[in-house]
Amino acid sequence: MNFKRKRSEKTGLSPGSYVFLGEQKVEKTQLTIMDYDSQVFEFRDCQNIEEVFPYKEKETITWVNLYGLHETDNLKKIGEHFNIHPLIIEDILNTKHRPKVEIFEDYVFCTIKYIRYNPESDELEIEQVSIIMLANFIFCFQERKGDIFRHLRERIQNARGRIRKSGSDYLWYTILDIIVDNYFLVVESISDRIEELEDEVEAGETETVQSINNLKRVIIRLRKNIWPVREMLGSILRDESSFFKDSTIPFIRDLYDHTIHVLESVETYREMITGVMELHNSAMSNKMNEIMKVLTIIATIFIPLTFFAGIYGMNFEFMPELKWQWGYFGLLGFMLIIFLSMLYYFKRKKWL
Amino acid sequence: MNFKRKRSEKTGLSPGSYVFLGEQKVEKTQLTIMDYDSQVFEFRDCQNIEEVFPYKEKETITWVNLYGLHETDNLKKIGEHFNIHPLIIEDILNTKHRPKVEIFEDYVFCTIKYIRYNPESDELEIEQVSIIMLANFIFCFQERKGDIFRHLRERIQNARGRIRKSGSDYLWYTILDIIVDNYFLVVESISDRIEELEDEVEAGETETVQSINNLKRVIIRLRKNIWPVREMLGSILRDESSFFKDSTIPFIRDLYDHTIHVLESVETYREMITGVMELHNSAMSNKMNEIMKVLTIIATIFIPLTFFAGIYGMNFEFMPELKWQWGYFGLLGFMLIIFLSMLYYFKRKKWL
Amino acid sequence: MNFKRKRSEKTGLSPGSYVFLGEQKVEKTQLTIMDYDSQVFEFRDCQNIEEVFPYKEKETITWVNLYGLHETDNLKKIGEHFNIHPLIIEDILNTKHRPKVEIFEDYVFCTIKYIRYNPESDELEIEQVSIIMLANFIFCFQERKGDIFRHLRERIQNARGRIRKSGSDYLWYTILDIIVDNYFLVVESISDRIEELEDEVEAGETETVQSINNLKRVIIRLRKNIWPVREMLGSILRDESSFFKDSTIPFIRDLYDHTIHVLESVETYREMITGVMELHNSAMSNKMNEIMKVLTIIATIFIPLTFFAGIYGMNFEFMPELKWQWGYFGLLGFMLIIFLSMLYYFKRKKWL
Amino acid sequence: MNFKRKRSEKTGLSPGSYVFLGEQKVEKTQLTIMDYDSQVFEFRDCQNIEEVFPYKEKETITWVNLYGLHETDNLKKIGEHFNIHPLIIEDILNTKHRPKVEIFEDYVFCTIKYIRYNPESDELEIEQVSIIMLANFIFCFQERKGDIFRHLRERIQNARGRIRKSGSDYLWYTILDIIVDNYFLVVESISDRIEELEDEVEAGETETVQSINNLKRVIIRLRKNIWPVREMLGSILRDESSFFKDSTIPFIRDLYDHTIHVLESVETYREMITGVMELHNSAMSNKMNEIMKVLTIIATIFIPLTFFAGIYGMNFEFMPELKWQWGYFGLLGFMLIIFLSMLYYFKRKKWL
Amino acid sequence: MNFKRKRSEKTGLSPGSYVFLGEQKVEKTQLTIMDYDSQVFEFRDCQNIEEVFPYKEKETITWVNLYGLHETDNLKKIGEHFNIHPLIIEDILNTKHRPKVEIFEDYVFCTIKYIRYNPESDELEIEQVSIIMLANFIFCFQERKGDIFRHLRERIQNARGRIRKSGSDYLWYTILDIIVDNYFLVVESISDRIEELEDEVEAGETETVQSINNLKRVIIRLRKNIWPVREMLGSILRDESSFFKDSTIPFIRDLYDHTIHVLESVETYREMITGVMELHNSAMSNKMNEIMKVLTIIATIFIPLTFFAGIYGMNFEFMPELKWQWGYFGLLGFMLIIFLSMLYYFKRKKWL
Repeated sequence: MNFKRKRSEKTGLSPGSYVFLGEQKVEKTQLTIMDYDSQVFEFRDCQNIEEVFPYKEKETITWVNLYGLHETDNLKKIGEHFNIHPLIIEDILNTKHRPKVEIFEDYVFCTIKYIRYNPESDELEIEQVSIIMLANFIFCFQERKGDIFRHLRERIQNARGRIRKSGSDYLWYTILDIIVDNYFLVVESISDRIEELEDEVEAGETETVQSINNLKRVIIRLRKNIWPVREMLGSILRDESSFFKDSTIPFIRDLYDHTIHVLESVETYREMITGVMELHNSAMSNKMNEIMKVLTIIATIFIPLTFFAGIYGMNFEFMPELKWQWGYFGLLGFMLIIFLSMLYYFKRKKWL
Repeated sequence: MNFKRKRSEKTGLSPGSYVFLGEQKVEKTQLTIMDYDSQVFEFRDCQNIEEVFPYKEKETITWVNLYGLHETDNLKKIGEHFNIHPLIIEDILNTKHRPKVEIFEDYVFCTIKYIRYNPESDELEIEQVSIIMLANFIFCFQERKGDIFRHLRERIQNARGRIRKSGSDYLWYTILDIIVDNYFLVVESISDRIEELEDEVEAGETETVQSINNLKRVIIRLRKNIWPVREMLGSILRDESSFFKDSTIPFIRDLYDHTIHVLESVETYREMITGVMELHNSAMSNKMNEIMKVLTIIATIFIPLTFFAGIYGMNFEFMPELKWQWGYFGLLGFMLIIFLSMLYYFKRKKWL
Repeated sequence: MNFKRKRSEKTGLSPGSYVFLGEQKVEKTQLTIMDYDSQVFEFRDCQNIEEVFPYKEKETITWVNLYGLHETDNLKKIGEHFNIHPLIIEDILNTKHRPKVEIFEDYVFCTIKYIRYNPESDELEIEQVSIIMLANFIFCFQERKGDIFRHLRERIQNARGRIRKSGSDYLWYTILDIIVDNYFLVVESISDRIEELEDEVEAGETETVQSINNLKRVIIRLRKNIWPVREMLGSILRDESSFFKDSTIPFIRDLYDHTIHVLESVETYREMITGVMELHNSAMSNKMNEIMKVLTIIATIFIPLTFFAGIYGMNFEFMPELKWQWGYFGLLGFMLIIFLSMLYYFKRKKWL
Repeated sequence: MNFKRKRSEKTGLSPGSYVFLGEQKVEKTQLTIMDYDSQVFEFRDCQNIEEVFPYKEKETITWVNLYGLHETDNLKKIGEHFNIHPLIIEDILNTKHRPKVEIFEDYVFCTIKYIRYNPESDELEIEQVSIIMLANFIFCFQERKGDIFRHLRERIQNARGRIRKSGSDYLWYTILDIIVDNYFLVVESISDRIEELEDEVEAGETETVQSINNLKRVIIRLRKNIWPVREMLGSILRDESSFFKDSTIPFIRDLYDHTIHVLESVETYREMITGVMELHNSAMSNKMNEIMKVLTIIATIFIPLTFFAGIYGMNFEFMPELKWQWGYFGLLGFMLIIFLSMLYYFKRKKWL
Repeated sequence: MNFKRKRSEKTGLSPGSYVFLGEQKVEKTQLTIMDYDSQVFEFRDCQNIEEVFPYKEKETITWVNLYGLHETDNLKKIGEHFNIHPLIIEDILNTKHRPKVEIFEDYVFCTIKYIRYNPESDELEIEQVSIIMLANFIFCFQERKGDIFRHLRERIQNARGRIRKSGSDYLWYTILDIIVDNYFLVVESISDRIEELEDEVEAGETETVQSINNLKRVIIRLRKNIWPVREMLGSILRDESSFFKDSTIPFIRDLYDHTIHVLESVETYREMITGVMELHNSAMSNKMNEIMKVLTIIATIFIPLTFFAGIYGMNFEFMPELKWQWGYFGLLGFMLIIFLSMLYYFKRKKWL
C-alpha cells in the first residue's frame, strides 16, 4: 500500500503545494498531441509541454495526452498557461483521488478511474485518468502510456462516426464512454470468477475461502471507484452550463444509464459472492457431518463388540460359558447379529 | 454467459454503430402488421420492412411486431424512416439493456423484460421487449416469435373490451400490462419453489443448499430486472407530455401499483429464502448434534465397561478376585448396574 | 396458495373484465343496509342490490355492507349505478390487492386488510375490506360475514359518542380505526408468541427452529400488509379534497400515528425474532459442547486406563511384573492416580 | 405485558372515550402547583383539580404536576376547562403512546418517555411524561410521583439561572432537557453493561448469551423510544408558531443535538453488542476446538497402542514373539517410540 | 469511561452553567497568541486571558490557542468579552460533544475531533478541537498542548503559500484541513492493521478474534466521529453568510471531498473487517474439520483391528483357529489388508 506512504508525507504541507501522490509508473513523462476538425488531422508525440501552448488559440479541436505525473513541473506550467485552479492541479497529482467532476467558468475538470481486472493476481489495477476540457481543448492525464484510447484514435484518424464533425464535448464523452464500457469487462470477469469459485466450492476445495474473501474485496473496491461516477454524470446532466451541447446530452444520459447498469451488476455480484460464502460454509459443515458419521458408525459398531470380546478374554476361574462347546461360535453369531442390526439402524437413519 | 462475449466485442467501437449485442434466438427476422380502428381490422405477416412504411400516414392504429434483432439493417431503416435517435436503435439491439423509458418529442421509447421461470433448470428466461410508440403507431421488438401477445391479438380481433375504441397509448398500456401480469406468475412459481425447498430441508436432504442458493440468485436477478420498471412507470405518471390521454392514466397508475406489489412480493420472498437457508443450517447442526449424541452414548457406556473387562483379562499371578466363585457374575452384575445408571443419566439429560 | 391459481387464470384477459380473484368464503352474497342521521336509525338485511339504490338520493348517511364477492354481478350494478371506475371494481374483486387509497372527484376508494392471528396454526388470517365513500354513502365490501363491526353498529344504534352527529367521513374513519386497532392485537399475540418461543429455546426444545422461522414469516407478511396503510393515510392527510372535514382530520392524524406505532412495533419484533434465532443457534452449539465434553471426559479417562489393562493382558512369557506379588494392586493404585489427576485436570478446566 | 391486556380492552370502543391504558402505579392521583415569576414563588400540594383553575387567568407562570392517571375524571375536567382536544386527553391516558408533539392554536402538546435502566433486572423502566404548554401555563402528567424534577424545582425556588426570568417555553425546554439528559445516563449504563458482558465472554461463561440477547433487546427498545424525540424536536424547530421565543430556540437546537448524539451512541452500542455476540460465538467454537483437540490427542495416542497390546494378548498357540526373551520390553520400547512421535506430531501441528 | 462519571455529574444542573465535562489532560491552562498580516508577524505565549482582549480591535488576523479546558473561568471571560452565546461555551467544555458547526451573526463556531490511532493499545485517541471564528480573529480550544499545528505555525511564520495574504476564513480552513488530513493517517493505520490481522488469521492464531472485534469497534467509533464533519462542511457550503470568501469556497469544497473520501474508506474497511471475521470463522471450522479428520482416521482404522485382536484374546476352550499353525500370521495379514484398504478409502475421500 503506497497509499499510506504518500499521504503521510503530505500531511502538514500547505494546500496548493504540488506533490505527486502515487506510484511512479513510467520513467519519463510522455506527451502526444492530436489536432483535428472535419478537414484537418494531425497527431504527433512531443517532447516539451511548451509545444502545446500554440494550439490554445486554434479553432480546431486539440487533444493532449500526458502520460506520467511525477514531473510536477509540467502540470504547473499547464496550470499557469491555461489558468487552471491550483487545487485542480493538486487533484490530478493525487492518484488516489475520488472520481468527481467540477465545472468552472472556463473549463470542466473530471477525474475517473480506468479499471482492469488481473485474473492472475485476483486484483484490480486502477489507473486514474483526469480530464480537463476547455473550449476546443482537452487535456487527458494518465499514469502511464497504455493502449486504452487506441481504437478511439484510429476512429478519429479514419473519420469514422460523427466524431470529426462534433465538438470537444463529444470527444470528452467518447473518452468517458470507453472507460465506462471497460467497467463492463471487469464486471464480466468478476462474474466468471464467481462461477469458478462456485465450482471450486462444489468440488470441495478448502482454500477457496481466501479467494472468496479476496473477490469480495475486489467487488467492494470496484463499487467504491464506480459509485462516484454516477453522481458525477448526474451532476453534469443537471448542470445548465453551456459546455455540453444539446446534441451531446442524450449520449451523456446514455452513459449515465450504463453506469447505473454497471453499479446494479456490481451490487448483484456482491450479493452473489455472499451466497458463495454461505455455500462454502454449508459445504464445510456438510463435510464435518460426513466425517462425524464415518467415525460414529465405526465406533458405534465396534466398541460394543470389542466389549463382548473383552468379557470372554477375562481370566476368572469360574466362567461357565468358556467351557461350552458352541460358546465361541455362539458369541460370533451374536456379534454378527449386533453388527447387522447396527447396519440396519444406520441405514434407516440414512447415514449409509 | 454470452453477455460477456458480446460486450467485449463492442468495446472501442464508436457509439452509434449498430451491432447486435445478444444471443440470436431466431433464424430469420419476422414481421407482423396489425392495423385497426373501431371499424377496420387487418392482420398479416410481411416479408419486408418497407411494407410497413405506408401505414405511417394512416389514421388507424398500427401495431408492428418484429421478431429477431440480428438483422440490424431493418432497424436502421426504421430509424431513418421514422426519425428515431440512433442511440435508441442501439438500445434496442442490446438485449441486456436495463428497462427504461425515454420520452421524445415525437415518440416514446421503452424497453422492458418479459420473464419466464423455467422450473426444470431453475433459471429465469429473460426476453427483452422494446416498444416505440408514435402517434397511432406502435413498434414492438422481440427477440423471438412467441405467444406472449396471442390473447391480446384475439381480443383486438374480436373487438373485446375498450381496446378498439382507444388510442395507441391504451394499446401500449395493454402490452405492458401483459408483461407485468406475467411477473406475478414468475413470483408465484418462486413462492411454490420456496415451499418445496422448505419441505426438502425438513426432510433432511443435504443437496438442498445448492438449490436454495440458486433460487436466491434467481430472486436477485428478478428484482434487478423488475426494479427499473417501477421507476419507468413512475416517470410516465409524473410526465406531462400529451402522449398518454387522461383516460389512460388511471390504467397506468394501476399498472404502477401492480409493479410495486410484485416488487414487495419479491422482497418478501428474498427474506423468506434467507429464512430457508437458516432453517437448513439449523437442520444441519441439529443433525450433527444427533450424530454426536449417538456416538457419545455408545462410547460413554462401553468404553468404561471394556476397561473393567480389560482389568480381569490381565495375567497377574496374584489377582484374588479371579479365584472367587461369584467373581465373574458379580462383575457382570456390576457392569449391568453401570449400564443402567448410564441409561438413566442420558434419559434424564433427554439424550434418549 | 390460491393466489397462484387465480392470478394465472386472469393473465391475458382484458383489463376491466370482472373476475373474482380470491377464495370464495361464503356461499351467498349477503347485504345489510344501515341508514341514520342524528334522528333516524334504520338497519336491515336485504336480498337484492337494487334495494340499495333509493338511498342514494337521501340526505341521511347510508352504510351498505356487502359480504362475499364472488357474485360479480352485484359489483357491476353498483359500479354502473354509482358511477365507479371499472378499475376500482376490479381492485375490489382482487382480494390480494395491496392496501391503497384513491381519491376521485365523486368518491374516495380505499382497500385495507383486516388481520387476525390464529395462534393454533401460527398463521395470519387476512381479509380484505374495501370501502367506497361517497357523499353521505359508504360501501363496505368484505369477503365474509364476520363480527368485526358489531361494536360499531351497536354504538351507532345507541347513538353513543359523536358518530350520529357526524358525517360519512367520520364513519369512514371509525371503520378504519377498528381495523387498525385490531393490528395492535395481532402485534400483541406476536409479542406473546416470541416470549413463548424464547422459553422453549431456553428449555432446549429443538423443534423450535421451525416455529421461529414460521413466526418470522408471519411478521414479514404482517409488515407487508400494514406498511401501505401508512402511505395511504399519509396521502389523505396531504390531500386537499373536501371529502374529509377539518374536524375529522385530527382523528385521521391520530390513526396515522397509530399505524406508525404498529409498524415500529412490527419492526422491533422482527429484530427480536432474529435475536431468538441467534439464541437458538447458540443453545444448539452450547448443547453440542456439552455432548462433546461428556464424550471427551469419558474417553480421555478410560482409553489410557484400558491401554494399561491391555498391557498386562499380554501373553509374553517373560513379563516380570506379572509375578510380583503387589503388581496387581500396584497397577490398580496407579490407575486410580491417573483417574484422579484426570478428574482434577477437568475440574480445573471447568469441564466438570 | 400489560400492554396487551389494556389495548385489547379498548378495541371497539368509540374514539374519544377516556379509558386509562396502562399500569396503575400510584394509589391516588396527586397534584402539585408551582406558580412563579421573577418576584413571586408559590409551591403547594393540592387535593382537587378545581384548585388549579383560578391560576388560568394569572400572568405568572404556573406549572401543574399530576401524578397518576387512572382517575380519568381529572383529565376530563382539565380538558373541558382548558379547551383541550379529546384525542389529546386520550393520548395522555395511553401510557404506551409514541413520543410526539402536536402544535395547536392555543397550546402545544407533547408526550415523551422518561427512561431508567435497572441494572439488576437488566430491564428498562419507562415512564410516560405528557406535557401541555399553554401561554403561561404548563401541565405535566406523570405516571407516578418521582424525583425527576426535584433539582429543577429547587433551581426555580432559589431563582438560579435564567429560569425565573423566562417564559413557559423555557420551562418547557428545561423539563425536556432533564429527560433527554437522563438518556445519557441510560446509555452510559448500557456501555458499562457491554463491557461487563465482554469480560464475561472472555472469561468463558456460557450463560452470557441470554444476557447479550437481553441487552440487545433493551437497546432496541431504547432506540424505539428515543427515535421519535428527534423528529419531535425537529418539527418544533421547523415550526413557525409563536410558542417558542427566539431566545429559547438555540436551547431547543442544543437539545436536538443532544438527542442526535444519544441516538448515534445507541446505534453504536447496537453494533457493539452484535460484536459481543460474535465474540461469544467465536469463543464457543474455540472451546469446542479445545475439547476436540484433547479428545483427539488422547484417542489418537492410545487407540493404536491398545491395539498393539491387544495383539499380544491373543491366545494363538503359535506366536513366536511371545517366546522371545526381549519381546515384552521390545514392544514397550516400540510403544514408547510411537507415543513420542505422536507427541512430536501434535507439537508440530501446534495442538499442544 | 470517564464519559459516564462526568455526564452523570451534570444531569440536573441548569443549562448554561459552566462545568468541564471531560478528562483533565494538562495541569495548567496555556495560551498562545499569533498575530499576523502580510507584513506583521507576532507569536508569543501568554499567561492571562486578558492579554488577548486588546487584539480584538486590531485589523490583523489573530489566532489564539488555548490548551486545557478545566479552568472554566477563562472561557467565561472570553464568552463575555467576545459576546459568545453561553451554550457555545458549554459545548466547548463538553469534550464528548458531537462535531458540528453553528453560524451566528458575528461568529462561526465549530467543534471537531482530532484523532490519532495508537497501534499499541489498538485504541483511538480522540481530542476535541473547538474553533470560534470572528472577523479577523480565531479562537482554537484544545484539550492539551500538542504539536498538531506546528507545521502550520511554521508555514505562517515563513509566509509560505497564500496564508499570510488571506483572511481568517482561510486560516480556519487550514486548521480543519490539517485535522481532516490526519484522518487519512488513521485510516491508513487501520488498513495496515487489517492486513496484519488477516495474516494472523491465515497463520491460524486463535486469539485474533479479540483483536478483530476491537478493530471493528475502532472503525465504528471513527465513523461516528467523522460522519458529522461531512454534514458540517456541507452546511457551510450551502450557507450564504459572508464569513467565507468566494476564493476560500473551492478549498472548503475540496475539504468536503476529502471527508467523503475518508468516510468511504472507513465504510470499505468496515466491510473488510467483517470479511476478516468471516475468514477467521472459516479458518476455525476448517481447523475443526482437520482435528476431526485425524481422530476419525485413527479411530476408524484401529477400533476394528482392536476388535479382531480382542476376538482371539478370548479364553474359550474350543476356538479352532487358535490351534492353526498359520492362524496368527493369517490374522496379521488380514489386519494389514484392512489397514491398507482403509488408507485407500481415506485417500479417495481426500482426507489424507
